[in-house]
Amino acid sequence: MMEVNAQKQQVGEYAASLVHADMVVGLGTGSTVKYFVEALARRVQLERLPIRGVTTSKCTAELAQRLGMTIVDIDEVDQIDLTIDGADRVNRHLEGIKGGGAALLFEKIVARNSKRNIWIVDESKVCDVLGGFPLPVEVVQYGVEHLMQLFTGAQLQPVLRRASDQQPLVTDNGNYIIDLHVAQINQPAVLADWLANQVGVVEHGLFLDICDEVIVGGETMHILTAQSV
Amino acid sequence: MMEVNAQKQQVGEYAASLVHADMVVGLGTGSTVKYFVEALARRVQLERLPIRGVTTSKCTAELAQRLGMTIVDIDEVDQIDLTIDGADRVNRHLEGIKGGGAALLFEKIVARNSKRNIWIVDESKVCDVLGGFPLPVEVVQYGVEHLMQLFTGAQLQPVLRRASDQQPLVTDNGNYIIDLHVAQINQPAVLADWLANQVGVVEHGLFLDICDEVIVGGETMHILTAQSV
Repeated sequence: MMEVNAQKQQVGEYAASLVHADMVVGLGTGSTVKYFVEALARRVQLERLPIRGVTTSKCTAELAQRLGMTIVDIDEVDQIDLTIDGADRVNRHLEGIKGGGAALLFEKIVARNSKRNIWIVDESKVCDVLGGFPLPVEVVQYGVEHLMQLFTGAQLQPVLRRASDQQPLVTDNGNYIIDLHVAQINQPAVLADWLANQVGVVEHGLFLDICDEVIVGGETMHILTAQSV
Repeated sequence: MMEVNAQKQQVGEYAASLVHADMVVGLGTGSTVKYFVEALARRVQLERLPIRGVTTSKCTAELAQRLGMTIVDIDEVDQIDLTIDGADRVNRHLEGIKGGGAALLFEKIVARNSKRNIWIVDESKVCDVLGGFPLPVEVVQYGVEHLMQLFTGAQLQPVLRRASDQQPLVTDNGNYIIDLHVAQINQPAVLADWLANQVGVVEHGLFLDICDEVIVGGETMHILTAQSV
């Protein structure tokens, strides 16, 4: 079995080859996307590829700018042509859990405004039933303890995410992240709708009806599409 | 017909009489609530009434503290006993539009954690079908132009709310407000669910299944309850 980081590099570099001249490209967040951004930046430099990037986190924005890419604000463009992002878990219906890196809100905003969304993952991320990874929910700071109690009552095993200094982690948008420890999410759409309707929830890490294609690393790199289900 | 400000004072002062010793009281936001807070602060001082307040905006927090009331953070209390708030529109099913004062997010968090919610309004706020007042939606700054386009496409006539300096108004939680100009909201629950599921929407100003009682000012002050519908 191919080593995980080698798979991340493999799919990251492959995804960079999918970008064409004059595209507006959504740049995701995370360790796999880092390989993609680095490979894309090399193409920009070598081929003088005229593209503009829209980023999903301060972290990716800093990386892309350091590598000399042109970054624009999402509201400066009509639409994003192609977004490449990672995923923490993805099932064969192309539904995923995202937000391990705390960037789920901006990732979802960019994804919703993209014509085409491709996720790049190593094969450990693909699962039959979504689960085995905490589901992140971005919430307003005000009243967070009450929301924790609500989630506890709903058997969602909430844990407030903390930074290395043990203080609650604050997202790029000034909110907190609650990680829900649900072993198996059998009905993602039902949970997503329930979460969206809770007061204080800004966004959740269930990405449904968003992804068009998943590129999975491994000895034989393969592509999951809605057709291949 | 009784003058509007006289009605606001009338219901504000009446609501202050509903507060008992040892209560945790949710303090809403707006011009009617101001009368309530002032009357309640007088009771606190005269009767040495031991109560704690939970506020819904920086504006109300400043007022209450200036008047000598004890204010606690929502996460310091298990529950709020009674919340008194205003409403921009309310129908006879006790469904309302709130957020004219841009405090809808914290107002809704406080309301959801209150055992009992009472709204105080002058009679101009009561309507048969919700409408005649813009519906505020609190949204993430990032990607706001795309959300405006989405709302325009859904025939919701969105207008980004601006402050007196013409810059977009920023809420206490660092977000923007989009006002939707819908003449009549015939199915509030359907619109509420649709809005809650849009990426970038933090909260909306439709308050459904929240209010227990509405106190309406006028020559004959009257009370709407679920039973009186």
